[in-house]
Amino acid sequence: MQTVVTQLREVEALPQPYLLFLGDTTQPGYAKTAFGLRDWARVRCVGEYACEGATVGTGLPFMTPVQARVAGARALVIGVANPGGHIPATWLPALLDALHAGLDLIGGMHARLGAIESLRNAALVHGRRLIDVREPPAGLPVASGRKRSGRRLLTVGTDCALGKKYTALSIVRALRERDIDADFRASGQTGILIAGGGMPMDAVVADFAAGAAEALSPDAGAEHWDVIEGQGSLSHPAYAGVSLALLHGSQPDVIVVCHEHGRERMLGHEHYAVPSLEETIDIALRLGARTNPAIRCAGVSLNTGQLEEGAARLAIEEVGARLGLPVADPMRGGGSFERLVDACLA
Amino acid sequence: MQTVVTQLREVEALPQPYLLFLGDTTQPGYAKTAFGLRDWARVRCVGEYACEGATVGTGLPFMTPVQARVAGARALVIGVANPGGHIPATWLPALLDALHAGLDLIGGMHARLGAIESLRNAALVHGRRLIDVREPPAGLPVASGRKRSGRRLLTVGTDCALGKKYTALSIVRALRERDIDADFRASGQTGILIAGGGMPMDAVVADFAAGAAEALSPDAGAEHWDVIEGQGSLSHPAYAGVSLALLHGSQPDVIVVCHEHGRERMLGHEHYAVPSLEETIDIALRLGARTNPAIRCAGVSLNTGQLEEGAARLAIEEVGARLGLPVADPMRGGGSFERLVDACLA
Repeated sequence: MQTVVTQLREVEALPQPYLLFLGDTTQPGYAKTAFGLRDWARVRCVGEYACEGATVGTGLPFMTPVQARVAGARALVIGVANPGGHIPATWLPALLDALHAGLDLIGGMHARLGAIESLRNAALVHGRRLIDVREPPAGLPVASGRKRSGRRLLTVGTDCALGKKYTALSIVRALRERDIDADFRASGQTGILIAGGGMPMDAVVADFAAGAAEALSPDAGAEHWDVIEGQGSLSHPAYAGVSLALLHGSQPDVIVVCHEHGRERMLGHEHYAVPSLEETIDIALRLGARTNPAIRCAGVSLNTGQLEEGAARLAIEEVGARLGLPVADPMRGGGSFERLVDACLA
Repeated sequence: MQTVVTQLREVEALPQPYLLFLGDTTQPGYAKTAFGLRDWARVRCVGEYACEGATVGTGLPFMTPVQARVAGARALVIGVANPGGHIPATWLPALLDALHAGLDLIGGMHARLGAIESLRNAALVHGRRLIDVREPPAGLPVASGRKRSGRRLLTVGTDCALGKKYTALSIVRALRERDIDADFRASGQTGILIAGGGMPMDAVVADFAAGAAEALSPDAGAEHWDVIEGQGSLSHPAYAGVSLALLHGSQPDVIVVCHEHGRERMLGHEHYAVPSLEETIDIALRLGARTNPAIRCAGVSLNTGQLEEGAARLAIEEVGARLGLPVADPMRGGGSFERLVDACLA
């Protein structure tokens, strides 16, 4: 365990603040890391930078790497993904400029920065670091299954990419507004950049995945809340194993189930239907009870981003009446969200 | 997918026959790889070799590496594990002798042969290979969830190390005796050595675990059976994620649930009770139906190795009556096992 804790602390020491890099992106959907950092870690972002031709922006001031360095930035963060998860050659001049200007590079893609020779050489010459947040710490233990102190909440999804991270972040913010000691525990690359640390669950070797989840939310004070970002879905044909390892290792006292209104087919696996909220709650509680028999579902986080205000309110009310549970869209906030947070603490 | 298939074929080309190496082992429990190879791949084993002080033997003729090479052996297989999964310095002279004699080395421990400098240097000098079967192939895909042709059976356990591999091997042998086209699909290191190929599921990166299971049992003829070795348990606090990924990716038509009579606490996690057979069947069918809605449980493989013949027969009858399913101990064979195989084919 010593190794893990040391390495987790190293991850927490990510060089900050950041300059956000948007590549040559023209589709906002690929810039979710940059948007996540702007929305949840604005204080850690001095500005944005992009290649010629990029049309997507975060609204932060545009700065060259040199300007950003003068403004205090310590690292350039690759804030965009592309479908293959690789780093195109067209980005390299910008990345080399950043190293030359004295910035470290931070990436969270499947492709590793350190695998590109020109970046490796330039980092060496300029004494800079190439940091891949998708690289799990070495020496992760097999899960012990031992009950840990402190309270834990896990966001659980019907599918991928529908609001598990935003829900967890919103709940942490709401808890802190109530003067409750709470930490966001990131399990994916964007979350790790926002939190400044965490565990890239999808990159851990399968045998150690539940152990990695245990390491992510260690023993804490009796009244402390760890709010853990969920991954995938227990019904996902490719990623359910990761979701189950995270559920078992997190030992949550409380789950909040996340769903997107109107999503009927699994993202990228359209031949699979999205499971119902009822099924998702039932299977998560049944499986989660293995490592925490006291697990309960506090309510549902419903992503209504595609709906107008009135339709969203109706959808939230309809799901709440059907399930008999608090339902809210954290992005809309309001009384329904406060009631969901109440239910988490109940 | 091309990469995977190529690499799987490379694994299938493990150099054979083997000389089994027993280290300095004095406890039979640590030699299960050697015993498994003797019991299931005898034709691929020319003999055994050990350090001074070893008291555990397989009954195969003792040979030095030079004698084994003359007898046709092409590789020395490390047939023992020790608690830490490492390679002790006391084994190195024997391993270096084997390289010098012209044998490749094959290991399946967590520690990699290639990480030991003296072995690496000697392999280079003698033009030999160091093969770690726990190293998964590169380029594994994310699972597609697409239904594949052919029939599939997966052994599912209530816990680790209670007979999932032996059950799968026994079923393959019984199917072949009935002239049914069947393959054993290995998911752990001993199984891979027996089969000469397979997928080390516990060493795959979590995001690709279900994809690895899909690659392990590719499309096949409509009447062909892949009999897949299970891993862990869906109720295991550390390994359930691996078990679920294997279940989803295998898409089994049939499961056979494996249990050891009298096992009440999880091996190595004694603060967890072993789940009941009823619970294990129910949760496996429910989760497995996600990728194969036609999944069914054919029966139970009951490990009665700790019981006398009469007590074993009573235990098998009792469980069969309780569950209303065929129950057998494959190691004892007999009519009950033939009825279990009948039920798999029904």
